[in-house]
Amino acid sequence: MNPSRYLIIADGDFAPMTSKTANSVIRYLPDRVVAVLDRTQAGKTAEDVLGFGGAIPVVASMREGLALKPDTVLIGIAPQGGRLPAEWHAWLAEALDAGCDIVSGLHTFLSDDPVLREKATARGRTISDLRKPPADLPVASGLAKKVPGLVVLTVGTDCNVGKMTAQLQLTSALNAGGLRTRFVATGQTGIMIEGWGIAVDAVVADFIAGAAERITIEGGKDADVVLVEGQGSINHPGYSGVTLGLLHGSCPDALILCHQATRRYIGDYREAAWLELPPLTEYIRLYEMIGSAVHPTKVIGICLNTYDMDDDDARAACEKAGQETGLPATDPVRFDPRPLVDAIAAAHRRKMEKAPAAK
Amino acid sequence: MNPSRYLIIADGDFAPMTSKTANSVIRYLPDRVVAVLDRTQAGKTAEDVLGFGGAIPVVASMREGLALKPDTVLIGIAPQGGRLPAEWHAWLAEALDAGCDIVSGLHTFLSDDPVLREKATARGRTISDLRKPPADLPVASGLAKKVPGLVVLTVGTDCNVGKMTAQLQLTSALNAGGLRTRFVATGQTGIMIEGWGIAVDAVVADFIAGAAERITIEGGKDADVVLVEGQGSINHPGYSGVTLGLLHGSCPDALILCHQATRRYIGDYREAAWLELPPLTEYIRLYEMIGSAVHPTKVIGICLNTYDMDDDDARAACEKAGQETGLPATDPVRFDPRPLVDAIAAAHRRKMEKAPAAK
Repeated sequence: MNPSRYLIIADGDFAPMTSKTANSVIRYLPDRVVAVLDRTQAGKTAEDVLGFGGAIPVVASMREGLALKPDTVLIGIAPQGGRLPAEWHAWLAEALDAGCDIVSGLHTFLSDDPVLREKATARGRTISDLRKPPADLPVASGLAKKVPGLVVLTVGTDCNVGKMTAQLQLTSALNAGGLRTRFVATGQTGIMIEGWGIAVDAVVADFIAGAAERITIEGGKDADVVLVEGQGSINHPGYSGVTLGLLHGSCPDALILCHQATRRYIGDYREAAWLELPPLTEYIRLYEMIGSAVHPTKVIGICLNTYDMDDDDARAACEKAGQETGLPATDPVRFDPRPLVDAIAAAHRRKMEKAPAAK
Repeated sequence: MNPSRYLIIADGDFAPMTSKTANSVIRYLPDRVVAVLDRTQAGKTAEDVLGFGGAIPVVASMREGLALKPDTVLIGIAPQGGRLPAEWHAWLAEALDAGCDIVSGLHTFLSDDPVLREKATARGRTISDLRKPPADLPVASGLAKKVPGLVVLTVGTDCNVGKMTAQLQLTSALNAGGLRTRFVATGQTGIMIEGWGIAVDAVVADFIAGAAERITIEGGKDADVVLVEGQGSINHPGYSGVTLGLLHGSCPDALILCHQATRRYIGDYREAAWLELPPLTEYIRLYEMIGSAVHPTKVIGICLNTYDMDDDDARAACEKAGQETGLPATDPVRFDPRPLVDAIAAAHRRKMEKAPAAK
């Protein structure tokens, strides 16, 4: 089978911070993307809008997009709450009629829509709802403590600060350095890129930690390092429950704190400034204290997202974060990821030294 | 319409700690309960098993139960994960055939079962799944901060320590004392007793706090005090995500820490001893710190469950908890609830004094 050719819908929201799924697919699977549909940015390229992604065109209509012969239409933005904007329905019907599959990470399951489902069946196409959870999830009981490799979870100062992107960079660098490293996807974008995982924000609340436990154990098979994708933030008014369930279910040995250097308020990238972010040291205290209530854990590094700063400011922000926290700090997308790779390798050695010799 | 006559299924699990839903319905709506079905306790009365509930008989079969003319069969135990034991299906079919309605708080929705649904439709009976969440829940954004009355949330040292029971006692006592107090149910048992609420452990994970926010605001209309039913525990390996979502979504001004005095391990009432409970003072530190990350909050009292102790030990446990924490401590089910009622009334006065005079 040939790899898919994606047309990504990001209408009205294609931008560095808001179209998270679209951007990550463009960053990690650029050869598979034929176009992005956003009426407000039509005529530009992905590079124009994001600063990466090359000549991938932004188109103004489904018809224009279909002319570029995609075989899959991918929902590339995650509106708050994850539901389908009403007008997209017609576009998706048009795409199915043209013979495309659909891949979606919305909370509203497109495969439950009778019109779309009927069209897909009639055309022999598939609708993949990446947020649909497995039916048989357990309640977590701390089993992820027993993963033999080093479990590292990214935690954030807010949603959408670059946790997944940082980990994909670190996964490559760690594997290149000889540590068998597995990225465990916990959100729809990571699942699109890795091809497996569970969207923990979409499971029934009692099973958040159980979902995290299951995929952490799965990811831990034959891995030296398991990098579990973090979600939300421990002080996010809407999503903190998901964050804590993931923290307690995955039983990480180490945490990497992710922060967008210019972010001042929870939610301010959407103009919903709920809460002023406390200092990084306060986040470290919160995460270590609440995480260690189930399994001992330490923040071992700071991962900054500096996409909107110039090089000098970005370097200064990394230095400042390192000084404030006494921890290695870098932007692993922009600069050398080595400080964080070294911190993870050192934590891995410490865990192996402590492990019983018999293992 | 006459009030319902309940036959409660608690098969194999009718006991002081395990059949939580059955026990609470028996405690608060005893006149509506015609029998409990538990093959392992048949022949006893509720009083024999629980120490309250009088002559309500425990029966050995659905047939025996139906002979007592219930109009509603109620699922009275909450197995971990909340799914329906396979053999109960036949009993429920039998009950529908006999003209009963069904009320269930399981995670598996009985109204989705084709056989039961068809029988219910054919007989004109209803199947109420109390854990089925509303379809239109929001992502929380801190709106519950604006509730004018005092919002009090119970938090626990584990699941199943008596958070709901404590609050129902306090609700009566506060109303009797002249503070208009509303109990906000967040679990299936509370919903059975109060007649409204949302089971926050059954909503999609992204909407835990949103569900809590919605019902806290609803409960806050024309109330001086809103008592929000707590769930789980902040250090429970399986359920902590629900606990934190509820804490951040309801924005409580004050917390009451609930503890079963003889509990030593998380989950030990089910022989799953995951974690030794830290001291009460450590719980206070954890809950205040993580709760205040979204809305400033303080633990104002300790609520002990002493059901398995004699009177002297129970009094000693309350005294010890009071000394350890410097807070009012009592078992409001067994002893005078006044210390906690007074603490809530004082917190209410403090909030009203701080409120802008215009309100």
